[in-house]
Amino acid sequence: MQITGTFLDEISHDIPHQNWGAKEWDADFAHMKKMGIDTVILIRSGYQRFLTYPSLYLLNQQGCFEPPVDLVKLYLELSNKYGMTFYFGTYDSGKYWETGDMRHEIDVNLHVIEEVYKIYGHYKSFGGWYLSLELSRKTKWAIDSITKLGNQCKAVSDGLPVLISPWIDGKKAVLASTNQVTKDASVSLNEHEKEWNEIFDGIKESVDMVAFQDGHVAYGDLEDYLRLNKALADTHGLISWTNSESFDRDMPIKFLPIKWEKLLFKLEAAKRAGCEKAITFEFSHFMSPLSAYPQAGHLYNRYMEHFSK
Amino acid sequence: MQITGTFLDEISHDIPHQNWGAKEWDADFAHMKKMGIDTVILIRSGYQRFLTYPSLYLLNQQGCFEPPVDLVKLYLELSNKYGMTFYFGTYDSGKYWETGDMRHEIDVNLHVIEEVYKIYGHYKSFGGWYLSLELSRKTKWAIDSITKLGNQCKAVSDGLPVLISPWIDGKKAVLASTNQVTKDASVSLNEHEKEWNEIFDGIKESVDMVAFQDGHVAYGDLEDYLRLNKALADTHGLISWTNSESFDRDMPIKFLPIKWEKLLFKLEAAKRAGCEKAITFEFSHFMSPLSAYPQAGHLYNRYMEHFSK
Amino acid sequence: MQITGTFLDEISHDIPHQNWGAKEWDADFAHMKKMGIDTVILIRSGYQRFLTYPSLYLLNQQGCFEPPVDLVKLYLELSNKYGMTFYFGTYDSGKYWETGDMRHEIDVNLHVIEEVYKIYGHYKSFGGWYLSLELSRKTKWAIDSITKLGNQCKAVSDGLPVLISPWIDGKKAVLASTNQVTKDASVSLNEHEKEWNEIFDGIKESVDMVAFQDGHVAYGDLEDYLRLNKALADTHGLISWTNSESFDRDMPIKFLPIKWEKLLFKLEAAKRAGCEKAITFEFSHFMSPLSAYPQAGHLYNRYMEHFSK
Repeated sequence: MQITGTFLDEISHDIPHQNWGAKEWDADFAHMKKMGIDTVILIRSGYQRFLTYPSLYLLNQQGCFEPPVDLVKLYLELSNKYGMTFYFGTYDSGKYWETGDMRHEIDVNLHVIEEVYKIYGHYKSFGGWYLSLELSRKTKWAIDSITKLGNQCKAVSDGLPVLISPWIDGKKAVLASTNQVTKDASVSLNEHEKEWNEIFDGIKESVDMVAFQDGHVAYGDLEDYLRLNKALADTHGLISWTNSESFDRDMPIKFLPIKWEKLLFKLEAAKRAGCEKAITFEFSHFMSPLSAYPQAGHLYNRYMEHFSK
Repeated sequence: MQITGTFLDEISHDIPHQNWGAKEWDADFAHMKKMGIDTVILIRSGYQRFLTYPSLYLLNQQGCFEPPVDLVKLYLELSNKYGMTFYFGTYDSGKYWETGDMRHEIDVNLHVIEEVYKIYGHYKSFGGWYLSLELSRKTKWAIDSITKLGNQCKAVSDGLPVLISPWIDGKKAVLASTNQVTKDASVSLNEHEKEWNEIFDGIKESVDMVAFQDGHVAYGDLEDYLRLNKALADTHGLISWTNSESFDRDMPIKFLPIKWEKLLFKLEAAKRAGCEKAITFEFSHFMSPLSAYPQAGHLYNRYMEHFSK
Repeated sequence: MQITGTFLDEISHDIPHQNWGAKEWDADFAHMKKMGIDTVILIRSGYQRFLTYPSLYLLNQQGCFEPPVDLVKLYLELSNKYGMTFYFGTYDSGKYWETGDMRHEIDVNLHVIEEVYKIYGHYKSFGGWYLSLELSRKTKWAIDSITKLGNQCKAVSDGLPVLISPWIDGKKAVLASTNQVTKDASVSLNEHEKEWNEIFDGIKESVDMVAFQDGHVAYGDLEDYLRLNKALADTHGLISWTNSESFDRDMPIKFLPIKWEKLLFKLEAAKRAGCEKAITFEFSHFMSPLSAYPQAGHLYNRYMEHFSK
């Protein structure tokens, strides 16, 4: 099971920035292409007051800062150039992370979605939406929020597909702002099934693909969760992708590239579970030969060796 | 507003060491020069028992360890070579950080200041003093300590200028030894004004330049603080620099280079506030093409592109 | 005092993986050789369910995962090629770290030790054993466990030497999963002497070399501990090595290469204390020109400059 999609983590939330310019991004897309990536997903179009594109709405109505470059434009052009599909990630005010309540993010994103499609919808590579609000089972008002935003995406873009990438509330679902790598209380497979059955039932008309993050459960438990997620998605007519994380959640240093053996393990589990596509968070820091972390380039080499066999 | 000064963080406190030799430092000074840096400031001349120069006083009276190289000499020679002004940073026993009481650092530094100027004062590049005791509003005995040390610097060196670089007790003023990036209780603009008015009044005869660290408040609040600091400095006849930090305080990994957009944002705010000079903590880890963190080299490139436009 | 041995940290516990293939390992061994390393010690042959070699016992009886490469074989071949002695590190299920009770690791390792020697004992470079259970004074059942495992190693291999590398319960003995760098309660020199006298007396027939980790006490206290450890080892007929850690325990970022001055300081203290050999944890991340951390390559250069004088 090869990785054919990656997030673009340009608005840095908890991964330090690489300070690339247009030239470095172009070279990075070339490396992606070589490894078989056909889909790039902007992780978020803005975070708090920093933006990836000069949104008149966010600048004028939400007090955001003028960005020095238009990255959405750059990514769309590079996606055109390399024959990739670009998914636009919604805006994240940061309030949801503080409160756990998704409703804060609805209104502003109804505007953002409309605005963005007007400006960039004509690009050939503009191929879908990513709802950047990472939900889990305890997210307040998740169904309502996802439904409203997914519907808006589809309404303005004549039905382009909508992707979400939730997390499993497993033993490794700890905050980045702690050095812990595990927690004691975590969800059981049964609770996960019951709760996500409800969530999928609520959002199934507004979302197309679900790519659970694969780094929050023990390696030995992952395949069970992947199979369950696939079954739940099938039941509700959703498409099951895996978000195979390429950073290592088991280390006190947050976050560096994952060990190749672990990534391969997760991809093979996803294959057996029948996932339709593997994407990763994310190529440019954790798998790219251009990454500031040289471990990433070695991971790329191991990956290429394996899949060229 | 360009950066024309940088700290030299050779005695590592919380930033891991790069293990450079004389050749690497020379190359680094060349990069500094190219970007317009004319001032280098030794962050501290010793930390606990490790030293940057073979101080007979600190070796014999304070039990410090013999250093393998004389970095003060190296930096002064490189400053001569590249036409820069060198500020000598005082010794830090580490006791102040444990107790919050600056008085521990006075006596030892009265000796260090005298000794250092006798040995190195003849260098053309020896141009000033940096009082390495980073104070904030709650520092015990700060006025008394800063006054005594500043006066000693001026007395032994015929009045060479004295620099301090305090921190604002803002929401990001958290310890490096925690993974948190923000705290709840922080100073208000009014409290800051009242308290720093008193501090400046107390130290104004003993200090020349004040360069507040610019990383402890929210980006949206920074310009207000910079303007207030400038006004307070003007009132008391002090020169207002900004210490525009080039590492990113918003990340769980401590500390990697800042995003270019954030650095530019802070420099533009300092320009509008009328700061007389921008220095940074610090070039060699966070902005240098030679840094162990490749993000730093990319930051250098973005910076050079911007200011060569 | 030069470093002539290094651990190989291939099964990552808390140091992120470098994702090297056979080519990179070969080049790394060449760098080791050049710096005088004649001994390589596998830090552990497996951690939790991940393995360095395809152990039929661990795969079939303990539910471990099939490894993509046989690293034990690779390391033995490289040790043959470069004329080095290889020490095999035992398996670590992870249970000991959770409970502090070593008995969990005995049974499985009695099998592993037997199996490994059958498969790999014929290699010329297979020269010893490393008991990977890092003990300290409060380790439950340490004497019993070390004795049983050491005896087994000797029994199956006709008496090849057995190495342990305990830690001193000093002020820097903090968990990697915290950002703290020191703790308040730590052992005194007297307590250390009393407790390790008992431990050494219990294990002296089953172990040959003891290499205390040298990073858990203050720099100023290290020589006292090294001398005491040497005297205790001499009393019980054990050989005293030092494990001179090449990463920096004083930094909030865990873990990056140590400052050259600190490593030199520790090696000189070990020399004065009469240690018979210095090994390090570990070359490939923290001292190698090939390391993902460029500070490591600079450390290598400083080291080579110093010892070629």
